[in-house]
Amino acid sequence: MSEKVQISHHGPCAVRSPLRLDAFGSIESTFILDEMHYHDPLGLGDAVQFFERAGPREQLFFEPAQTKVAIVTCGGLCPGLNNVLRSVYLQLHYHYGVPAVLGIRYGYAGFSPDATSAPLWLNAEIVNSIHQFGGTLLGTSRGPVSADIIVDFLQQRGINILFTVGGDGTQRGAHAIVEEIQRRKLPISVVGIPKTIDDDVQYVNRSFGYYTAIEKAKEVIDSAHVEARCVHNGLSIVKVMGRDSGFIAAGATIASQEVNFTLVPEVPFKLEGERGLLAVLHRRLLERHHAVIVVAEGAGQSLLPPSQERDASGNLLHRDIGLFLHHKIRDHFASQRFPIVIRYLDPSYYIRSVPASTVDSVLCDSFARHAVHAAMAGKTDIIIGLQHGVFIHVPIPMATTDRKRLSSEEWASVVTATGQPDLA
Amino acid sequence: MSEKVQISHHGPCAVRSPLRLDAFGSIESTFILDEMHYHDPLGLGDAVQFFERAGPREQLFFEPAQTKVAIVTCGGLCPGLNNVLRSVYLQLHYHYGVPAVLGIRYGYAGFSPDATSAPLWLNAEIVNSIHQFGGTLLGTSRGPVSADIIVDFLQQRGINILFTVGGDGTQRGAHAIVEEIQRRKLPISVVGIPKTIDDDVQYVNRSFGYYTAIEKAKEVIDSAHVEARCVHNGLSIVKVMGRDSGFIAAGATIASQEVNFTLVPEVPFKLEGERGLLAVLHRRLLERHHAVIVVAEGAGQSLLPPSQERDASGNLLHRDIGLFLHHKIRDHFASQRFPIVIRYLDPSYYIRSVPASTVDSVLCDSFARHAVHAAMAGKTDIIIGLQHGVFIHVPIPMATTDRKRLSSEEWASVVTATGQPDLA
Amino acid sequence: MSEKVQISHHGPCAVRSPLRLDAFGSIESTFILDEMHYHDPLGLGDAVQFFERAGPREQLFFEPAQTKVAIVTCGGLCPGLNNVLRSVYLQLHYHYGVPAVLGIRYGYAGFSPDATSAPLWLNAEIVNSIHQFGGTLLGTSRGPVSADIIVDFLQQRGINILFTVGGDGTQRGAHAIVEEIQRRKLPISVVGIPKTIDDDVQYVNRSFGYYTAIEKAKEVIDSAHVEARCVHNGLSIVKVMGRDSGFIAAGATIASQEVNFTLVPEVPFKLEGERGLLAVLHRRLLERHHAVIVVAEGAGQSLLPPSQERDASGNLLHRDIGLFLHHKIRDHFASQRFPIVIRYLDPSYYIRSVPASTVDSVLCDSFARHAVHAAMAGKTDIIIGLQHGVFIHVPIPMATTDRKRLSSEEWASVVTATGQPDLA
Amino acid sequence: MSEKVQISHHGPCAVRSPLRLDAFGSIESTFILDEMHYHDPLGLGDAVQFFERAGPREQLFFEPAQTKVAIVTCGGLCPGLNNVLRSVYLQLHYHYGVPAVLGIRYGYAGFSPDATSAPLWLNAEIVNSIHQFGGTLLGTSRGPVSADIIVDFLQQRGINILFTVGGDGTQRGAHAIVEEIQRRKLPISVVGIPKTIDDDVQYVNRSFGYYTAIEKAKEVIDSAHVEARCVHNGLSIVKVMGRDSGFIAAGATIASQEVNFTLVPEVPFKLEGERGLLAVLHRRLLERHHAVIVVAEGAGQSLLPPSQERDASGNLLHRDIGLFLHHKIRDHFASQRFPIVIRYLDPSYYIRSVPASTVDSVLCDSFARHAVHAAMAGKTDIIIGLQHGVFIHVPIPMATTDRKRLSSEEWASVVTATGQPDLA
Repeated sequence: MSEKVQISHHGPCAVRSPLRLDAFGSIESTFILDEMHYHDPLGLGDAVQFFERAGPREQLFFEPAQTKVAIVTCGGLCPGLNNVLRSVYLQLHYHYGVPAVLGIRYGYAGFSPDATSAPLWLNAEIVNSIHQFGGTLLGTSRGPVSADIIVDFLQQRGINILFTVGGDGTQRGAHAIVEEIQRRKLPISVVGIPKTIDDDVQYVNRSFGYYTAIEKAKEVIDSAHVEARCVHNGLSIVKVMGRDSGFIAAGATIASQEVNFTLVPEVPFKLEGERGLLAVLHRRLLERHHAVIVVAEGAGQSLLPPSQERDASGNLLHRDIGLFLHHKIRDHFASQRFPIVIRYLDPSYYIRSVPASTVDSVLCDSFARHAVHAAMAGKTDIIIGLQHGVFIHVPIPMATTDRKRLSSEEWASVVTATGQPDLA
Repeated sequence: MSEKVQISHHGPCAVRSPLRLDAFGSIESTFILDEMHYHDPLGLGDAVQFFERAGPREQLFFEPAQTKVAIVTCGGLCPGLNNVLRSVYLQLHYHYGVPAVLGIRYGYAGFSPDATSAPLWLNAEIVNSIHQFGGTLLGTSRGPVSADIIVDFLQQRGINILFTVGGDGTQRGAHAIVEEIQRRKLPISVVGIPKTIDDDVQYVNRSFGYYTAIEKAKEVIDSAHVEARCVHNGLSIVKVMGRDSGFIAAGATIASQEVNFTLVPEVPFKLEGERGLLAVLHRRLLERHHAVIVVAEGAGQSLLPPSQERDASGNLLHRDIGLFLHHKIRDHFASQRFPIVIRYLDPSYYIRSVPASTVDSVLCDSFARHAVHAAMAGKTDIIIGLQHGVFIHVPIPMATTDRKRLSSEEWASVVTATGQPDLA
Repeated sequence: MSEKVQISHHGPCAVRSPLRLDAFGSIESTFILDEMHYHDPLGLGDAVQFFERAGPREQLFFEPAQTKVAIVTCGGLCPGLNNVLRSVYLQLHYHYGVPAVLGIRYGYAGFSPDATSAPLWLNAEIVNSIHQFGGTLLGTSRGPVSADIIVDFLQQRGINILFTVGGDGTQRGAHAIVEEIQRRKLPISVVGIPKTIDDDVQYVNRSFGYYTAIEKAKEVIDSAHVEARCVHNGLSIVKVMGRDSGFIAAGATIASQEVNFTLVPEVPFKLEGERGLLAVLHRRLLERHHAVIVVAEGAGQSLLPPSQERDASGNLLHRDIGLFLHHKIRDHFASQRFPIVIRYLDPSYYIRSVPASTVDSVLCDSFARHAVHAAMAGKTDIIIGLQHGVFIHVPIPMATTDRKRLSSEEWASVVTATGQPDLA
Repeated sequence: MSEKVQISHHGPCAVRSPLRLDAFGSIESTFILDEMHYHDPLGLGDAVQFFERAGPREQLFFEPAQTKVAIVTCGGLCPGLNNVLRSVYLQLHYHYGVPAVLGIRYGYAGFSPDATSAPLWLNAEIVNSIHQFGGTLLGTSRGPVSADIIVDFLQQRGINILFTVGGDGTQRGAHAIVEEIQRRKLPISVVGIPKTIDDDVQYVNRSFGYYTAIEKAKEVIDSAHVEARCVHNGLSIVKVMGRDSGFIAAGATIASQEVNFTLVPEVPFKLEGERGLLAVLHRRLLERHHAVIVVAEGAGQSLLPPSQERDASGNLLHRDIGLFLHHKIRDHFASQRFPIVIRYLDPSYYIRSVPASTVDSVLCDSFARHAVHAAMAGKTDIIIGLQHGVFIHVPIPMATTDRKRLSSEEWASVVTATGQPDLA
């Protein structure tokens, strides 16, 4: 009933690790349970999965002194990208003794022969202070590049390991690269580091940048609350990131404690009718004379005519629920001759470009170092996951089938914090 | 050639001050020069004005134990309003022994018989922690209320002193109140505390909230810079406050050191032509592949069809230069088939709602206490000004004739920081 | 081989919960594994324990409208205490409808008939903004009070539930209260909320205040690093909290990335000899001319003559390893006529008194609400634990037998970040 | 009666400035009044001094393309040193076209033939991000070096301009260098940029780093206040910088609004007696049960046996008034069997090593650019001063005769904020 999740890796691993492994305890053959919440703890009646634990290995596949590494950052900005780049470099350089780490510029596009910028050899001086800054030293872009072109690049440059830092689109691209590598029977490892400010990658309980994002979102919500409180019938709407999952909206709501309505993609809501948002909001303004709404960008999509547009990464572009709500609410109160003062705040570009907070800095360091351990041991076609506080190896296809969504318990915490009724 | 600026005040001042005045040194009869930069320092050839210095007076007009005070905050939010409220209360209560301070709710509208909220008696517990929060405890609103209604309120409630915290519209309203008070021959003092996040009130070298605003604007500009740097041909536009004066744009530019083009109301610029913004920006992107533009909301108004709308405070509503620029730039590069990644950030509501920074906290405290000293001594129809580091009394009509604008030297500092050419 | 951890509770639970439980999903009978890292995942050869999951229950023991609650904060300050107080109150008042929550002043001492301050009835206005401030609204103190006196108080005041917020000393006190309650056969629940800035309570993977503490510690380490770098042969020593466990030293080291030597209670080190700290430090200064040392207060105790003193909470008082190191290092280099500039920073009182950061605010809210759920359901003699991301119920005696310590893997991350050799 | 302050400069100035001077308006021949507060504004009865205004000049003494510049930072760390270095470099390089700027390492000691580190040629990449960090890129040290050695260095390296960033000791050293330069009849300009975290240099109304320092001091005071409030009879003592002047203590007190007693060098106080600190503190604890004391390091020196020690810069070393007070207060209450909880915080190293805040960043930029303008125009033996908001040239001997101290009005603001009685 229980099964071990199988991980692809090159082999045999015949190189002795240069790390002081005694400090780490025994990691080699340990596994962790995927699902540990049981109704029937003794019986183990349901099928459960056991994941390989991430960490350093005694035997490596790559000889450090002969290893060449490439790293690329793709997709939208997220706090902590520079911390990841820096820790990957430091772990490779100082701890394994890998001499050459190549930074690809501006996402997958940087592998192309007609890339706008040549790759950058990383060194200790270049990466020294980058973790103090937002963004990514290497630049980023959206959109795929043919796996053929990328594997050509890797082959021509003699690259042994490729680290792909990005969301599920990026990692699906990484899997295509793996398939092309396998076709060509090359001993190149591809290891993904999941980057999702929305915190919605599966098998990653918490992704880096998320807590930084909710800290900044909370600051903006605090301002929105002040704006709403300081005028009569003040109403502030804050749109936050979250295309398919409401984690940022949820976390910022609980952190701020000042939100009255939180709208997320996972939970449908109505605008009209007795229990709809407009009527409930109307009653609140009559009673309390101010309100704060936080809306995730992917919330309430059923209220909007469907969009067919996609961004360069292939993500379905959402219609702007924030402005839609803004206008609906404004028109509702205008039609009722009920004067309100409405403020609309959309801080996304501000939030995602800041340096990583302390808690995310620590997390980035762990993701980065575990990715290096995995790659040096010859693992491939995996991302580093984080289940129940333990870093694990997750096959890319398994990680990218779907997105993580708010659990009913997480949503209950939000409802507890806002006191909002069921709006559906 | 030199003349003392005359200040209205009630008199005679026969009440002895309860303050420990020995600590302050001699203030009573000192004056400061309005203009101290001379081409001809010895000749004093030009007419100069001397202002009465603000500060505690030995003789008061109002008997503290019998004094009733009202305070009102008007217009847009600005960091430090709560610090001002708190310090006014503490100075009146603990140092002068004034027993009654009434907070008017939601701006001048709160004086109206049909106000939405009754005034609030302030006390030590209510104001204790308010300086830790943005906004204003009392709430605010835009727009005038008839002086007649306000003076009725003051008379019926037996108010002796009214503090008006607001910008030039608010202070013009305060002057109308003074005129009505004079018509009715009432011994009521009206003292204004200048509030302008734009830092554009005359005779006020620096107004509270300004440094907090540029600190927050700088943070957003830093994010905008990261956004622009991390993609190929990234272009970020940040719109900041500044209807008639570019002080926030200027200060945030110098603080950030990452801005390439700063556009302010005082300095006209062209979009088209060889030296226009579009061509200059195009050349920069070709060369450096990223750019940051900071634009004050009142910049480039001549480029827009004139608007006749005014806000409730009577301020001429500007067309939105930020979105206008955004669209013009987007269209320019689209027409040139030059792919850029453009980000538009408008952080105004976020900036103005935060708590006052340290430097502004100190400044608020001074403005507030000097306003109390002036009012207790019977001064009226004045605002507290700040010239060359010294707090002064400025007649309201003199302070509200025009707005302060960037000096050529201040503008030169901006140009030095951005390296931008003349765009006119 | 596996066993469920048994939890004490009152019963039968015949009161229907007023919460909207549908939002939470099914929690009632779920359990989680204590230990999920297996060498042999299929065999389950070792004994494992299953914990009851925390969360709301359908059936309550206490009738909300008749319930009286007391809450007390004990021991040293920790970021987040006010958040816990506020969320406990809000959950009891708004969600369960409990009418009466009594705040005990200044720790267990506040139960005494000769307490310095009378207890405080909490209400929505009192707790409204307290989470924005460090410290604890109720005050705190160290040291036990006889369980007899406390149960007298509870009985006389008709208290049904007592929440004890504190470290393991406090929770051992709570267990003594439970024993006295059982002796008197009273239906009073006692639920502990673990508070340990050192993050060293067992069965609590991460305690509130910890990330705030390492964020502040990191800031101070950054300053220490600047101090060391900006002079020739600069050496900064930063002492941080951590009596028995080096979690703060470890976390701050990884977050800062600027520490060269981290010293923790779990890992012995030598001062003298070729591999001792003094010699290693000497070599580093010769080579790099600056160094930063972070030392947990409980590190290197074997180097000091043992102390017999205890603080009022009964904790063995450690000799000050920070000053000891400072003097040893100063004397070493003086004796070698090697001029160094040494800075000693001890920021503990600064670190522990700040408001909770965003990530800790979210955590506090969860601990508080889960404690309320447990108590209302009649659970007693437990603390709220957190294993692998899931909140659980842990019997107090089980939680207080020992303290949590850095795992070998956590220590390996530190060594990776500092690059320090084995100093033992 | 009025006189112009004479400034030393090389001449004739026959090189045309490359700056766009039209942007600046006319600065050349303007002066500003030293003292503008008059009792008798019309009579100008007292002698007044007029200072030359700082700013760019049309005619330069040095031909930019042939100019070599050196810059040195000396004495204690202060927020903003890196901003000054960066703006000096950028102004010289981009605006004047000066090709060579040499950074001297670790203070005046870096000029010595046996300096520990060779000077560093600055370039745009090196200085690009340094303003984001505390400390000084160049390093610093205390103590003088013979002017002979320094002028030898300047002569051998062909340096034309030396910028000395430091306090009054550093600037006295700069004057000695000028004298040696004059002896050798060399056309080398020496321009000082005043650095004093204590804000105590004469003719400098506000020095860079000061507001950053009080912001950080305020944070620590806030923690001290929380510590004192959260225990019964809690007493916190915070020692801040301020050897001869209490500006930091004063500013942090007003910013924090939570201090009960502020002790500064300018205002003597007694410990013993009915009106002494111990008795007053005792009464406050009886009444309010907590207190916060802020003490500048140079306060109450008459209470201590005089010290004869000096630091390497020649500053008389003060006995530690902070620890002295701590022990006196502890002993007093112990002798009265009055239990108190006392916390002592000394955050100096933390405060002075942080990056400059926004307001200081702007100020640093101005000081740096004005220093460059002055030096290029051949001014020498001056520091850049700041009077009444205007940057001026001040002869070094005039600036270093004494230190600035709190005015009676500034002290009155402190007393107003604390409510403390006269303790002398």
